Amino acid sequence: MDITMTSIGKIRSGLKRIQDCPKQESEHAPAAVLVIDEAFSDAAKDLHAGDRLILLTWLHGGRRDELTTRPRDNAAAPFKGVFSTRSPNRPNPIGLHHIEIVERLAPLEWRVSAIEVLNGTPVIDIKPVL
Amino acid sequence: MDITMTSIGKIRSGLKRIQDCPKQESEHAPAAVLVIDEAFSDAAKDLHAGDRLILLTWLHGGRRDELTTRPRDNAAAPFKGVFSTRSPNRPNPIGLHHIEIVERLAPLEWRVSAIEVLNGTPVIDIKPVL
Repeated sequence: MDITMTSIGKIRSGLKRIQDCPKQESEHAPAAVLVIDEAFSDAAKDLHAGDRLILLTWLHGGRRDELTTRPRDNAAAPFKGVFSTRSPNRPNPIGLHHIEIVERLAPLEWRVSAIEVLNGTPVIDIKPVL
Repeated sequence: MDITMTSIGKIRSGLKRIQDCPKQESEHAPAAVLVIDEAFSDAAKDLHAGDRLILLTWLHGGRRDELTTRPRDNAAAPFKGVFSTRSPNRPNPIGLHHIEIVERLAPLEWRVSAIEVLNGTPVIDIKPVL
């Protein structure tokens, strides 16, 4: 069964090439800007500085036919099923990120805490941390 | 921009009608069964009892044109942008669930802890909790 999603915005980031991306937020990823599309401004109207959010992104560079992987590109490790890893290569390459809004830069632009995705990565959902 | 996802499996659950669904896992949702499609068996090969996972589902009953909502159907509350709520009504109705695998029932079926989705809900990704 196929499911069609809509991009609701994107991430503006200093990370221009995939080889520059750290593996996790904790590894010195730079701060980034969350940009929401005008069509979804009502859905974003209650986002504020200090909000802790879960951001779902579409890692468009992911290889969708890779079902097993070696964690962290370690050639000595056994191949692991991707559902037991955070690899960006998976059937649906969805990125899951915990972020915090730092400040509002423009009506539909917010500076957010570190996030390890390429410039231009589509955003597909935003949820509050419970 | 449109993005096409593939269902990787589904949830088998005793919840047959949307009005039977609790709002959150903590509110007495019943245990459920995670069923992975044969095509993705390699990706699931390292799932084991005791694993703590994040499950992403496609809440196919969600109203995708609803950009604001009253939290918990409280008619007195102000309308809130859906990106600041966990409402299933949102542009991309993705469900985010923290679960634990209880036991393996069959090669591609696992009993999992409580989850508040309807029987037959498509699963779109599985990630380990870090």
